[in-house]
Amino acid sequence: MDLPRSPLAPAAFPALAAVTGVRLAAAEANIRARRTDVMLAELKPGTAVAGVFTRSKTAAAPVDWCRGILGHGSARALVVNSGNANAFTGYAGVRAVAATTAAVARLIGCRADQVYVASTGVIGEEMPVGRLIEAVPGLNRALAADAWQPAAEAIRTTDTYAKGAGETFSLDGSTYTLNGIAKGSGMIAPDMATMLAFLFTDAAIPADVLQACLARANEVSFNAITVDSDTSTSDTVLLFATGAGTAHEPVSGMSDPRLRGFKAALQTVMTGLAHQIVRDGEGAAKFVSVTVSGAASRKGARRIALAIANSPLVKTAIAGEDPNWGRIVMAVGKAGERADRDKLDIRFGDIVVAQNGAVAPDYDESQAAEYMKRAEIDIHVDVGIGRGRFRVWTCDLTERYIAINADYRS
Amino acid sequence: MDLPRSPLAPAAFPALAAVTGVRLAAAEANIRARRTDVMLAELKPGTAVAGVFTRSKTAAAPVDWCRGILGHGSARALVVNSGNANAFTGYAGVRAVAATTAAVARLIGCRADQVYVASTGVIGEEMPVGRLIEAVPGLNRALAADAWQPAAEAIRTTDTYAKGAGETFSLDGSTYTLNGIAKGSGMIAPDMATMLAFLFTDAAIPADVLQACLARANEVSFNAITVDSDTSTSDTVLLFATGAGTAHEPVSGMSDPRLRGFKAALQTVMTGLAHQIVRDGEGAAKFVSVTVSGAASRKGARRIALAIANSPLVKTAIAGEDPNWGRIVMAVGKAGERADRDKLDIRFGDIVVAQNGAVAPDYDESQAAEYMKRAEIDIHVDVGIGRGRFRVWTCDLTERYIAINADYRS
Repeated sequence: MDLPRSPLAPAAFPALAAVTGVRLAAAEANIRARRTDVMLAELKPGTAVAGVFTRSKTAAAPVDWCRGILGHGSARALVVNSGNANAFTGYAGVRAVAATTAAVARLIGCRADQVYVASTGVIGEEMPVGRLIEAVPGLNRALAADAWQPAAEAIRTTDTYAKGAGETFSLDGSTYTLNGIAKGSGMIAPDMATMLAFLFTDAAIPADVLQACLARANEVSFNAITVDSDTSTSDTVLLFATGAGTAHEPVSGMSDPRLRGFKAALQTVMTGLAHQIVRDGEGAAKFVSVTVSGAASRKGARRIALAIANSPLVKTAIAGEDPNWGRIVMAVGKAGERADRDKLDIRFGDIVVAQNGAVAPDYDESQAAEYMKRAEIDIHVDVGIGRGRFRVWTCDLTERYIAINADYRS
Repeated sequence: MDLPRSPLAPAAFPALAAVTGVRLAAAEANIRARRTDVMLAELKPGTAVAGVFTRSKTAAAPVDWCRGILGHGSARALVVNSGNANAFTGYAGVRAVAATTAAVARLIGCRADQVYVASTGVIGEEMPVGRLIEAVPGLNRALAADAWQPAAEAIRTTDTYAKGAGETFSLDGSTYTLNGIAKGSGMIAPDMATMLAFLFTDAAIPADVLQACLARANEVSFNAITVDSDTSTSDTVLLFATGAGTAHEPVSGMSDPRLRGFKAALQTVMTGLAHQIVRDGEGAAKFVSVTVSGAASRKGARRIALAIANSPLVKTAIAGEDPNWGRIVMAVGKAGERADRDKLDIRFGDIVVAQNGAVAPDYDESQAAEYMKRAEIDIHVDVGIGRGRFRVWTCDLTERYIAINADYRS
């Protein structure tokens, strides 16, 4: 199924600089169809790695593998395919991962447990691992420092555009690069979704510090988006630090103030990729930010924000450009978190819709209806109880979501 | 918006016998549009009542009222309107309930706190309570023992057909009747949904026993259905026992064996109404039963069953008649309950799709695809861990769901 580019897509794939120590390639392995569907990244010896993964209880074989090898924190390669998720494939799935990592390790010249793997696509069908392995030598020959866009293209499934983001940051007076690529457009919900993201920097950051930085940034980026509340078996975010850029003094720990630039760049790149995923939400016509304040706790605010962002009735009202704030009240109520019906405030952008649990005295529905025609909608709910605050991003739910997902495998 | 009758609807509204002690009427109060939108039930003195309500933290004013008066367990009237939910209407909402119950009490000749109220429709708009009150005298004059269908028609919102069910049962050798009417088609999820159901019997069952029987039957009927995972601010199920049928010896308690017939009738009527609600799920084209067995507990089985039944990706696959069992695995994983990926079994009807965490050896996808064309789909998942079992009912998610909900208020 060839989908038209999302109306919320950015104008173009960004120009990404090289990250010293990283070379990439993409190829057509014919996993499911004749298209570019596999990518390889080769990482310089000494590369540190961090990762966060789906909390699904039925995680795919590649997720189990990556989790298992993360302990020693050293990576030399990443291989990713689209077309088949190698999920719920039993022992054959485990064998497919073993064969893939062994083949890559042989060519790159490293241990198999330094090879990271991710797969995305149909669940429950056996992985045609032979085709993947046959593509590896060609990938290895084609490795180049600038193949960011081909790599991002290769990991797409129902994505209507390739997703990339990059920043530079400074550390001890030298400049470093952080690039990321991602995929995801459906089955997107925190903890996490069929969402793959791979981040690469040339700074030298030890694995434990990298892990702490990744986990923190993940909480307010990839874990703060939702398209359809469905959680994938394959979610994977990996962050690699080659240390191959200009040499700098070792980083002392997570709280080292010299990491400020890196942390800011990481936040920007991850949030940027997360937004690109929402903007490519299956059938999405609107990009929606939901901010909840005044909740009993941050966690409470997050649950309420997600209840709003995941509500099919809220999302279809947004698709219909209907300022149906009653459905927002409903969603606040169903979150199960403390809320005071008679203290709720609701705003659409700057328009005060409800105050103290009833429609605002000077609310003008025609003005709100005008606001709902925008492509970007901000919903703000104040629960009136405490100081907990959280923001999530989502998209509307349109008939095209159904059309795409009813037909995906056909 | 006039919706065509659901393809899953029963052939006709059932013929319901009179319930001694209950008289009903319906009228056009023009709450939101020119249609029958209000019903009144008058109950004989001595009627006992039980109720279960939404767990929403932003429940509507009528729900607060009914919860508040349930304590003394005595009812004389029920008044229900559609078109406006009187939810999130602040103090005006509370006043509207007070005015309504006072008006009904005056005419019926009872205390206001014996008058039950429910409202369904748009949230957050002030209730035109004057119009409702003006309709009460006419309703009172029109009361009749056989007006079940008009009453069921009056409480519809986006329902494409009126919902009713009735059974007779025996107690001490006499025959009694149990009738129910219900409404609901969207915003349907356990605990509960914009779902109203009213049940009436002429047996003499004390309020505390009635409450225990209702709560138990509710768990496996209305609390076991889901259309869109959204929970309404107005869910209400009320069960009235007039005691006006043939006199019988007092019931001693919940475990009195003479109640067996009543309990079975209650279960049948409530499950029947619950199924009718799912069959009228907005845009529904398929009626889906999801049974989960082998979970660590009954509660765990319920959570997994609901994760499957609420998954937009599972529901769109069913709409597309695609036996995409990979999405069922995904949903099992996201439920957060214990499951062993490598012990999962999945069946569609009698077709074994997956066994021990991988596709079944003799699985024939064309056979499964043929099965998915049916209007009624049974999904069975065995989690392979323990003995917990639960069944829920849902419908598919179609483009019509979106069309209905994007346009509902316009």
